[in-house]
Amino acid sequence: MKKEALSRRDALKFGALGAGLAVFGASNAFAAAPLEKDVKFDEEYDVIVIGTGFAGLAAAAKAAQRGNTVLIVEKMGRIGGNSAINGGAFAVPNNPDQKKHGIEDSAERFIADSLKAGLGINHVELLEVIAARAIDAFEFSRECGAEYKLGDKPSWFGGHSVPRTLVTSDMTGAGIIKPMTEFVEKLPRCKIYRRTKFDDFVLDAGGRVVGIMARTNYRFDSKLFSDDLENTTGEKKVYKAKKGVVLASGGFSADRIYRKLQNPQIPDNSDTTNHAGATAGAMLKAFQIGAFPVQVDWIQEGPWASPDERGFGVGPQLNQQGLFKYGIVVDVRNGKRFMNELADRKTRADAQYKILKEAPEAFPVALGTYNTFDKQILPLVEKGLATGVMKKYNTLDELAADRKIPVAALKESVAKFNEGVKKGVDEFGKPVASFNGECIDMKGPFYSTRTAPKPHHTMGGVKINTKAQVISALTNKPIPGLFAAGEVTGGTHGASRLGSCAVTDCLTFGMIAGENI
Amino acid sequence: MKKEALSRRDALKFGALGAGLAVFGASNAFAAAPLEKDVKFDEEYDVIVIGTGFAGLAAAAKAAQRGNTVLIVEKMGRIGGNSAINGGAFAVPNNPDQKKHGIEDSAERFIADSLKAGLGINHVELLEVIAARAIDAFEFSRECGAEYKLGDKPSWFGGHSVPRTLVTSDMTGAGIIKPMTEFVEKLPRCKIYRRTKFDDFVLDAGGRVVGIMARTNYRFDSKLFSDDLENTTGEKKVYKAKKGVVLASGGFSADRIYRKLQNPQIPDNSDTTNHAGATAGAMLKAFQIGAFPVQVDWIQEGPWASPDERGFGVGPQLNQQGLFKYGIVVDVRNGKRFMNELADRKTRADAQYKILKEAPEAFPVALGTYNTFDKQILPLVEKGLATGVMKKYNTLDELAADRKIPVAALKESVAKFNEGVKKGVDEFGKPVASFNGECIDMKGPFYSTRTAPKPHHTMGGVKINTKAQVISALTNKPIPGLFAAGEVTGGTHGASRLGSCAVTDCLTFGMIAGENI
Repeated sequence: MKKEALSRRDALKFGALGAGLAVFGASNAFAAAPLEKDVKFDEEYDVIVIGTGFAGLAAAAKAAQRGNTVLIVEKMGRIGGNSAINGGAFAVPNNPDQKKHGIEDSAERFIADSLKAGLGINHVELLEVIAARAIDAFEFSRECGAEYKLGDKPSWFGGHSVPRTLVTSDMTGAGIIKPMTEFVEKLPRCKIYRRTKFDDFVLDAGGRVVGIMARTNYRFDSKLFSDDLENTTGEKKVYKAKKGVVLASGGFSADRIYRKLQNPQIPDNSDTTNHAGATAGAMLKAFQIGAFPVQVDWIQEGPWASPDERGFGVGPQLNQQGLFKYGIVVDVRNGKRFMNELADRKTRADAQYKILKEAPEAFPVALGTYNTFDKQILPLVEKGLATGVMKKYNTLDELAADRKIPVAALKESVAKFNEGVKKGVDEFGKPVASFNGECIDMKGPFYSTRTAPKPHHTMGGVKINTKAQVISALTNKPIPGLFAAGEVTGGTHGASRLGSCAVTDCLTFGMIAGENI
Repeated sequence: MKKEALSRRDALKFGALGAGLAVFGASNAFAAAPLEKDVKFDEEYDVIVIGTGFAGLAAAAKAAQRGNTVLIVEKMGRIGGNSAINGGAFAVPNNPDQKKHGIEDSAERFIADSLKAGLGINHVELLEVIAARAIDAFEFSRECGAEYKLGDKPSWFGGHSVPRTLVTSDMTGAGIIKPMTEFVEKLPRCKIYRRTKFDDFVLDAGGRVVGIMARTNYRFDSKLFSDDLENTTGEKKVYKAKKGVVLASGGFSADRIYRKLQNPQIPDNSDTTNHAGATAGAMLKAFQIGAFPVQVDWIQEGPWASPDERGFGVGPQLNQQGLFKYGIVVDVRNGKRFMNELADRKTRADAQYKILKEAPEAFPVALGTYNTFDKQILPLVEKGLATGVMKKYNTLDELAADRKIPVAALKESVAKFNEGVKKGVDEFGKPVASFNGECIDMKGPFYSTRTAPKPHHTMGGVKINTKAQVISALTNKPIPGLFAAGEVTGGTHGASRLGSCAVTDCLTFGMIAGENI
């Protein structure tokens, strides 16, 4: 080996990897996954799952239910990744609450909505699976203990042509993650190793995935520019997976290197709605064993995020189920609306970026009144005010003065919007006809947030088939022993995922991976 | 090895690869590149270049000029890939003909134009290199024997804010490829193996690229659904590259599998402007040894292609330097214009796709008069008429009848466009002010083509730095011994490459790879 070619990363690999390996040092460490014949397995399972989000837990729960021994590895100290900080909104086409309230939905309608947001590049065969089986995933999550607010009319999320979104009882993804974690931890055949970092796949001589390299006692360090490349903590272990591995490592919205390669407009220090562990490392390893990279540059910027808090926070819910919905968003420089506040995320983020490019501090302002919030979201209103993400004003004059918006134009924008609601026609195409005349209440008080896009969901990833098997670029067939589900996969959402379809995608394909492995 | 895991492709690899390998059969063939210790080299060079397009030949010529022994491998029987069938248009910012004609250009202007077409996701550091060194690449191509039409005002291509495009004397890329091929074949240290297919990289134990696996006497077969996966012809060879390998294998517009994974809207049987060998195989191999996949889903559809001929043909030049420029394009269903015919390619292709989705046979029609063609393109007019790609009519009535366009609306569209030209303002934002009143001549005769998008250029690929070194996802540093240039790289053009910037990108970064290897 040439000494000059060794970087810090190389040293890490060659050094730290040594423990569990027989002849690894002489092998092709940079580019190739280790081979079964070169490793000594520390532990053995039927199935190994990488990641404890919706997809990983659903895969593990289903696989364990089917009698398999399952190890789930989670690099963070906390279970659930982004799923635990998600808003708990779950689009379920053809769900019972739609039927109860006379809302006509169909698989075709769901697929058409997804294709519209996805700019037509979605992989339709994956959408078909979701449309058909989201209801099963919903029931499976309830079987695992998740609870939903049921009985009311489903929520209507941006880009969906009908209300089809169910929400957990506590309005967070933790409402699914917590019971599912308890569920899998109670199963005698299933366990979770926290602070255990996936490093690489182990292959047999035929190219089948038969295990993973990992490090236990891993301490994720969000202060590193790239935890994946720089973190040397932990002790090397090699785990055998007799039936296969499910990659459910999530997206890369927090990966400063990979997200910027796809969209150089994202500043290194940009906040994200994601948890700090949302990095590309595991997905890139899958590419290196031959997984097809699909549509990797579509990064969804949550258009409803708040620049006045870190991470996901409360802004997204206050906006999505409140101010963006029955209220309006204006350009602070002229007091005018500039988008359909319920358009798909890309359309909205692009509209915001246009403003922020011209004036980096001119965060668009959302506003509405108490009746503007969905009933379910009312408990969050006080939280929003307490954290400063939302502010409350007695009059539009006060609001305009504080937010530095031309007041006459602002009043005109509100009046024009209200007129449109009454007529059932909105100048930006917002579906106001369904509002039953529910307007911004001119008596006030007025609620308002500042908005800014934050990287939220990465649409691209590895290519899977309808059985959640990862497809190899070397054969255009499944990589034996490798499954994937959730945000690490690409194609399902095309150019832009519709709101509340992450839970749908992750739980459905996680469950399917668990069924097929 | 598990027998059931062996597909036809696997059999191919395990069988055909055997010849040059010592212990390959027991190694990790599916996912990993072979190791130096496991192969026996048949031949040895300083530099190996994969591909004989603009990028490959420029890299080889420059590397050989610097005293290196160079082998260029080309899988096809013909030299030049897409470059040989390219239109020979070469955007050179700050070129002498701009200066001669008082056209102010700058690096900043070129970068701004590229970013606008690229939707802001271009890798600016690569654009900066092109802006600064395109002129060197232009001079280098002349040193290698390429000849250009010089002295006139440069051509003005869609999306460029100024005329900056120089064109070869024979108006084809062959005008560069032919002399460059002769140039490198005359160099005592440089040779080209035709019908030699790159199969994989060979790495040393430190991860450095030290050679390639290839097959000689390869017979590319365009009848196969995937030549990369199904073609078993040829005899295995292993070539050593002491200083490194330059990947210049081009894009994947003809790859039915990979282009469809990125844009499922492209039908399997869709024609392309590219030669049949434009497949993803070599690029995917680079991903497997760790190259970062960048922006792989942006596929540019040439909006000026013709459904009345195969491949690139003559339509693109007749339209780009003729009917799209000083003429107009109309929707045959209503006789109306629907786009700025000089907008960026994505905008135009999207506008056409919208029509073709509604009515798959309603190919938009371009039209103009003899004065509508650039002087340089006049020799092609007869060719267009002879092949049936273009038709000639005495009157607009004849044209409308034959093309099945509502005649009154068509006449109104032409009149309205001509008025706009006279006023210097176009309803679709076409830069008609620069036309000096040059209108569609109502006296006729009228020339017309049908238009349709064809996959033309794949923007994504491997990540390179400003020295054309391929960056590894494992280290975020160069993969030792691996360079890349041209369409196989990603990031430079962002979401959409500007017309006539392919030659620029390929020759500039090819030359730079040759300088740095």
